Amino acid sequence: MFVLGIDPGLSRCGYGCVADDGGREQVVAAGVITTEPADPVPSRLATLRRELAELLAELRPAAVVVERVLFQTNARTAMAVGQASGVALLSAAEAGCGVAEYSANEVKLAVAGYGAAPKEQVQAMVARLLGLAAAPRPPDVADALALALCHLAAGRAGRVARP
Amino acid sequence: MFVLGIDPGLSRCGYGCVADDGGREQVVAAGVITTEPADPVPSRLATLRRELAELLAELRPAAVVVERVLFQTNARTAMAVGQASGVALLSAAEAGCGVAEYSANEVKLAVAGYGAAPKEQVQAMVARLLGLAAAPRPPDVADALALALCHLAAGRAGRVARP
Repeated sequence: MFVLGIDPGLSRCGYGCVADDGGREQVVAAGVITTEPADPVPSRLATLRRELAELLAELRPAAVVVERVLFQTNARTAMAVGQASGVALLSAAEAGCGVAEYSANEVKLAVAGYGAAPKEQVQAMVARLLGLAAAPRPPDVADALALALCHLAAGRAGRVARP
Repeated sequence: MFVLGIDPGLSRCGYGCVADDGGREQVVAAGVITTEPADPVPSRLATLRRELAELLAELRPAAVVVERVLFQTNARTAMAVGQASGVALLSAAEAGCGVAEYSANEVKLAVAGYGAAPKEQVQAMVARLLGLAAAPRPPDVADALALALCHLAAGRAGRVARP
């Protein structure tokens, strides 16, 4: 089963696909989709959707996992993140994938063991859990992989909790 | 020439299409696209995109005008508006339409004459400028028509200002 994490952004949208064969988790694909800051926002959003649609058609993940963005202090960034996350959620629905959302704190808790873990620690844990020699770069990729790992951990917790 | 104003929202997305024959402006189409609050956000965004794509294919506007949302106090609403506005901008780009964005204050200034005009006054001016017997309901429709009128006014101002 493939789980695709997406860290939405308009300039850089990180993605990371993790396979779970019931035991060890492995990276299947990871990278960033970038759009040109000098281009108009509508065509950048269209580029993001086109590239996400290609990725989803290629990987056919069982679930797409997107960060639930609750609040950002920079209103301009929040709007761009909201627009990019809308395109990510839309693309997942159009590809017929299940969608899960987790807050940054839920991801940190699942991957690093506590919700206030610093970014570097989360990135190091992503590398360790996935058997990588170094933390994935840029950080958007590590964040996307962390989302996928969080969803897989939630699934395991759910299975354990079930009577 | 048709100009389509879109007031982005996930529960209610207002639209209003205005024809400018060089003199009097007339309503060509107006309404709201609604999505079911009980449905998951990804499928609601997919519904919004499908309905906007149909609308754009039918009307073939020269320009799509979307409100530039800069800041909202309610973080949850801001994210939903950001996601819906992303889908509106994306749909316009995919339909090959030009896109313009104006802030709420720019719209009020263009339609009602001053940037701090109350909503009711803007809605009454929309009705008056378009020769309607009453302000369009719900307010999302009036807001969308106001965006279209703002863009047409900006175009006229541009023509006048050119040497």
